[in-house]
Amino acid sequence: MTTIDWNEGKVRFIDQTRLPASEVYVETDDYRVVGEAINRLAIRGAPAIGVAAAFALVLAAYKHDTESSRALETEFRTAAEYLAGTRPTAVNLFAAINRMQLTFASASHESMMTVRARLLEEAQAIQREDIDACRKIGEYGATLLKPASSVLTHCNAGALATAGEGTALSVITTAARQGKVARVFVDETRPLLQGSRLTSWELIKQGLEVVLITDNSAGWVMQQKKVEAVLVGADRVAANGDVANKIGTYPLAVLAARHGVPFFVAIPTSTIDLQTASGRDIPIEERAEEEVTHIRGVRVAAEGVQVYAPAFDVTPHELVTAIITERGIVRAPYAETLRSLKRAAVGAA
Amino acid sequence: MTTIDWNEGKVRFIDQTRLPASEVYVETDDYRVVGEAINRLAIRGAPAIGVAAAFALVLAAYKHDTESSRALETEFRTAAEYLAGTRPTAVNLFAAINRMQLTFASASHESMMTVRARLLEEAQAIQREDIDACRKIGEYGATLLKPASSVLTHCNAGALATAGEGTALSVITTAARQGKVARVFVDETRPLLQGSRLTSWELIKQGLEVVLITDNSAGWVMQQKKVEAVLVGADRVAANGDVANKIGTYPLAVLAARHGVPFFVAIPTSTIDLQTASGRDIPIEERAEEEVTHIRGVRVAAEGVQVYAPAFDVTPHELVTAIITERGIVRAPYAETLRSLKRAAVGAA
Repeated sequence: MTTIDWNEGKVRFIDQTRLPASEVYVETDDYRVVGEAINRLAIRGAPAIGVAAAFALVLAAYKHDTESSRALETEFRTAAEYLAGTRPTAVNLFAAINRMQLTFASASHESMMTVRARLLEEAQAIQREDIDACRKIGEYGATLLKPASSVLTHCNAGALATAGEGTALSVITTAARQGKVARVFVDETRPLLQGSRLTSWELIKQGLEVVLITDNSAGWVMQQKKVEAVLVGADRVAANGDVANKIGTYPLAVLAARHGVPFFVAIPTSTIDLQTASGRDIPIEERAEEEVTHIRGVRVAAEGVQVYAPAFDVTPHELVTAIITERGIVRAPYAETLRSLKRAAVGAA
Repeated sequence: MTTIDWNEGKVRFIDQTRLPASEVYVETDDYRVVGEAINRLAIRGAPAIGVAAAFALVLAAYKHDTESSRALETEFRTAAEYLAGTRPTAVNLFAAINRMQLTFASASHESMMTVRARLLEEAQAIQREDIDACRKIGEYGATLLKPASSVLTHCNAGALATAGEGTALSVITTAARQGKVARVFVDETRPLLQGSRLTSWELIKQGLEVVLITDNSAGWVMQQKKVEAVLVGADRVAANGDVANKIGTYPLAVLAARHGVPFFVAIPTSTIDLQTASGRDIPIEERAEEEVTHIRGVRVAAEGVQVYAPAFDVTPHELVTAIITERGIVRAPYAETLRSLKRAAVGAA
């Protein structure tokens, strides 16, 4: 299964809203189809969104009706603006768009063919780096788990959320291959059930023992000492180590702290945003109320309710045991360790 | 709306599984229909279950085919045993059955007509006491809230969970009539959505402002200081003050403590079980995995998952700010205050 890829002038992606019932792929040469897919969570997960946006910008540059450099530039700018408006929280989206814009600017004196080729190269580099980061995150993270651990994860930080093997799930599957994972508790993750639908599906495919629980069961599961580590991904990590991730992550971190269970966040360094000082500065997307009031098109909630549907919450850095990246594992004080990590990445690039 | 009542030789109850789409009432002279309704949560909520079981035992005693005192006794015993097996956690079920058994025993030398009449009187007394308790819980509890409070509740501790106006929701609606409630955040309460389906429905009917959230949003809502009090009911309170309530209650208590938000439990004294020393001794029911893997008959979870579906969790007494009962409000040390309260109730009865 490849979540997102470039395929002979088209972007090919799996429609995650159809899983696990159907494995449906979409191939498109229209960047707006990619943008809509991001918006409706057919493509989701911070790193996957970044790769998708990069490829979408290549589509914009390859549009048949861009017959002049000026038309191409207009199309590219329109697409970049459109894609940046699809979802506000995951920083990888903006980081990828930014890289593509820099590539475009640096090639602007070249022929249209060269500009297009450079953009495709850059998007493929973003994809390749993500695949590579996932593998390394898995290797580093696996060192943190003891043999026969029971771990808990939330939402989906797996292959479906990245171009590679995932972030938190890469840690889990890598550790599982080393005999370190007894079972994985998976929160169903309301409202869109990424845990039940996606994470369970991925992990079962890989032969792991998956125990599905409602989000509100995690406390009881920890009270009964059934979990030895919590592993999640993130959509944005602020400069001070505050972590924005799928709604429901923060309560898990609070419970983990209470029960002495380590709480690990697995991310590529592209998810670290040094421009954002703390969690307070991260924009938190609110979703449509129908995602809570309706399930598969059927209304389940009483008529007349208001709905508050934040897509993410912020886990303060003091609740994060360690952050696992492709460049190693960092711990508090995050304000220092994250800066060093990010600088090392820039230095090496 | 009356959740459960005796109606000319039959038990009449609202089928809560059909709400909010349809308001369907069931009338039956068969105690097994009542028992099945308890088991499938068509009748639910600790006090309502107690009242339902009491009326069901009256049905057993009134069965047409009980033509001798011995046959009546056999029928009554079979029914009591059957009903006691429907759900293990709510102590009101066992308390009600116990009271009916004592009534039966004390009337055993009387005519069959008298036995039946005494059983009906006792069941109606249990019902009346619950209605009365709900009202007083509301009055006591309302004193705890400040004007224009935003409160959060979980599951359904309302009229649907009792014979009267509810426990936690009686506090909320009583306080609302005093202008003390700005809005009520309602957790949807997976897997059976008692919050979306039942609590929202009840509170909107009463003109309150209801904001529905997914269970995993409560942490973020508290982080944003949107909640001034958490109010829940309970299925059993142990002698030390540990509280068994709907799964997801414990995480709310942990979050409330972290955010300095008071955490109140509203119950009739019939929910206090001095025979159970602590939460460790409360049996926690596990529900069928289909309640998590399927929604309205459609499978949402990946094939091959295991499911862990505890119906309740235990909130340790140190996280409970106060317990609101029909005899007043008690605080720690609960081992002492609950015993005094329960003794006063026995003394007065």
